[in-house]
Order: sequence, then structure tokens, then C-alpha cells
Amino acid sequence: MAAVKVYGMPLSSCTARVLTCLIEKGVEYELIPLNLAVGEHKQPGYLAKQPFGQIPVLEDGDLTLFESRAIAKYVAYKYKDQGTDLLRHENAKESALVVVWTEVESQQYNPPISTLVYELLIKGMYGMTTDQAVVDAQSEKLGKVLDVYEARLTESKYLAGNSYSLADQNHIPYTYFLMKTPAASLINSRPHVKAWWEEISSRPSFQKVLANAANA
Amino acid sequence: MAAVKVYGMPLSSCTARVLTCLIEKGVEYELIPLNLAVGEHKQPGYLAKQPFGQIPVLEDGDLTLFESRAIAKYVAYKYKDQGTDLLRHENAKESALVVVWTEVESQQYNPPISTLVYELLIKGMYGMTTDQAVVDAQSEKLGKVLDVYEARLTESKYLAGNSYSLADQNHIPYTYFLMKTPAASLINSRPHVKAWWEEISSRPSFQKVLANAANA
Ligand SMILES: N[C@@H](CCC(=O)N[C@@H](CS)C(=O)NCC(=O)O)C(=O)O
Ligand SMILES: N[C@@H](CCC(=O)N[C@@H](CS)C(=O)NCC(=O)O)C(=O)O
Repeated sequence: MAAVKVYGMPLSSCTARVLTCLIEKGVEYELIPLNLAVGEHKQPGYLAKQPFGQIPVLEDGDLTLFESRAIAKYVAYKYKDQGTDLLRHENAKESALVVVWTEVESQQYNPPISTLVYELLIKGMYGMTTDQAVVDAQSEKLGKVLDVYEARLTESKYLAGNSYSLADQNHIPYTYFLMKTPAASLINSRPHVKAWWEEISSRPSFQKVLANAANA
Repeated sequence: MAAVKVYGMPLSSCTARVLTCLIEKGVEYELIPLNLAVGEHKQPGYLAKQPFGQIPVLEDGDLTLFESRAIAKYVAYKYKDQGTDLLRHENAKESALVVVWTEVESQQYNPPISTLVYELLIKGMYGMTTDQAVVDAQSEKLGKVLDVYEARLTESKYLAGNSYSLADQNHIPYTYFLMKTPAASLINSRPHVKAWWEEISSRPSFQKVLANAANA
């Protein structure tokens, strides 16, 4: 029997963040697909698990957790002694920097990149029109964040130091979708960011999330 | 000698988040005021500490940390055995819910409330005009988040359970400023949210941050 249950859609960014983390930590899970197109995430039964009506949710015994970054932290902490050490928990300095750069993803990187993916990719799927002014403003904002990343990745191989961590991993799902848009140039034009992206996205954990989604 | 140094402005929301946490944990600190009006946060010396050119920064020995929520987590974790137990670290279920609701503040509450405070309070200080369409959209968004809080706070006294935690505390600074605007009605019209707000904002830690700022 799987250790935990995940409610979500295999390729939604926030579900993919959680699945990548579970695989990286070697935790068995059962994915319970939710059909957002018919509003399964707004039904009372689901809202009792996730009051904001969003995916994903993780159930672990009698614990019900939401917010993909909270779930990823919970998994990384609960299973800290198995799989990849995503928290660098035995090194006081590195573990503090994992906390810092995980928060940078959440506060600085996510707002512009999630807006760009919405404008350049999601809107098209629903027949809506991209707002070029929004794309321009958010591209500039993301570019400034990536200038900081380029400098940082010149000093250390990964964001929190010389080891892969949760801070890097949380970037994977949205960046994967950004790379399918013209805004991929924001990554490709910065050599250290580009090399970092190629490395973190080719890890077996995320490749498995993609393969599972393709076979679903 | 103070244990740690904080670079910031005593009443900026993000600095206040860190100071409230340090006081709640009983950690001595030295506040090094930065004058944003003359751009001290964009000077090379400061950018070497905080590459995004924002306040606050915390220095603890040779560690330099930024992002207010990351600093608060670091302080709560490093000093977990002194002061208020902000992480509920001895209770697996409660500590997981602290992680969830801390993330809810960051992802769901902060975007609309920080925009409202900017539109309704900060813009006025700089002679700019409030954009009413933005206020309306963000008030609706924050209202929906607060509906979830109202239901949650009917079940438990605080967001993560029946004990005060980092999840509640991180809400204090922006809510304090929101309460000085007409959008205070979003809080005041929800009885459990209102009672929660009155209680968390009257804690000695935040009151001391306010008193120190007034005397600075
Ligand atoms: N901050 C949340 C965001 C979750 C989120 O936006 N989920 C999307 C799919 S990626 C969703 O459920 N959208 C449907 C909706 O919001 O109604 C998290 O990280 O879990
Ligand atoms: N996510 C950051 C935000 C920091 C932030 O926005 N700081 C503001 C003051 S509250 C600032 O430094 N503004 C000046 C600027 O961005 O140039 C944090 O939580 O520390």
C-alpha cells in the first residue's frame, strides 16, 4: 500500500512539484486524478480537504496537507534520512540557505513566471488572447530575478550551495512550461542559469513525473 | 553584544515580521536602520548582502540571510527551545499544519493584502493616485481568502490549531497596515477573523515593535 495519497493532475505545475519531491525522496504514493474541467476541485468533499479549491492535496494517514511548497517541505523533513538530502539538514549554514532560496522561488520567481506561463501557454489552450503588455512587464521582472540567479550560480553550482536541494527543485515545474514558450530566451541567454536548468530538469525524478504523465 | 544584526526600517512590513519573531523568541538583536529614501538598499555593499536590493537582511555570525519569511523560519527553528514555540515542533500534526498555514499566508494572503496596502496607503504617501479597479479586484480576492480563514478559525483558535504559531504571526505586519485603510472592513466584518486579529496584534512582541518604531 502506498505511503501517501496525492490528489491532483500529473502535469499541473503544483502537482508536479509534489510528485518530483516524493520520487526524489523515494516515497511511494498513489495519485488520485482530479478532473478540473468538470470542477471536481470545487465539490464539497474536496473543499473539505483543500478549502481554496485548488490542487494538489497530500494525505498522510489522518493528516491532510495542501499548498505544494508546504507539502514538499513536509515530505523533505519527514523523510529527511532517506533519498536525496533536499534540506541539507546536517549543515547549519547550507540548511539556512536552502530556506532562503526556497523562499526566493516562492516570493521572487513564482509571481512573474506563473503569470508568463499563464499568458503564453494556458490562455492559448482556452482560446484566450495573450496580453502583450503583461508579458513585457513580467519578462522584465523575471529577467531581473534571473540576473541575480546568474550571479549566484557563478559562485555555487546550485542556489543554496554546491548540493542540489529543495530550493532548486521547486523551480522545475514552471520553468519546464516556460521553456515551451518564446520566453525560454530568458533562461537560454544566461549561461549559468541555462546549465543549471538543464541539469536539474534532467534528474530522474522529474523525468519520471513527465513519463508517468505521458502514460496516464 | 546582540546575537544578530537586522538591516531594515523598523516599520516596514517585512522588517517588522522579522523583529516580531526575534522578540517572540527572546533573541537579542541590533537594528541597523537603512534609509531607503536615499537608496541605501541599492548600494553595492548592501547588494552583496541582499542581491534583490530589498530589506530586511539578518546577519548571524558569518551567515547572511534574506527574505523575511525565510529569516523568521530560521529564527524559529534555531531557537526552537526558547521563547514561544512558533513551530509546534514536538507535535507532528501541528508542526505540519504550521508549515501549511505559513505557506497559505505567503501564497494566498500576501499577494492581495500587499497590493491593497500599496494602493490604499503607500501610494498616498508618495502623492500617487489609488487605482480603484485594482482595489476592487484585490478586495474580492482577499475576501475569499478571509472566508476560508473565518471557517478555519471557527474550528480552531489559531490557524494551525489551538496554539499561536508562526503561521499566525507572519500575518501581523500587513494586516496592521490594512487596518488603517477602508479595507479594514474585510477583517471587521468576519467575527472570528476579527477576534483572531485583535488577539494576535495585541501580543507584547508586536506591541514592542510598534513602540520601538515610535521611539526611533
Ligand atoms: N499555491 C498553490 C497553488 C495551487 C494552484 O494554483 N493549483 C492550480 C493548478 S496548478 C489549481 O488548482 N487551479 C484551479 C483553481 O484555482 O480553481 C500551491 O502551490 O499548491
Ligand atoms: N519578499 C521580500 C520582500 C521584501 C520587500 O519587499 N521589502 C521592501 C520593504 S517592505 C523593500 O525593500 N522595498 C524596496 C525595493 O524593493 O526597492 C521579503 O519578505 O523580505
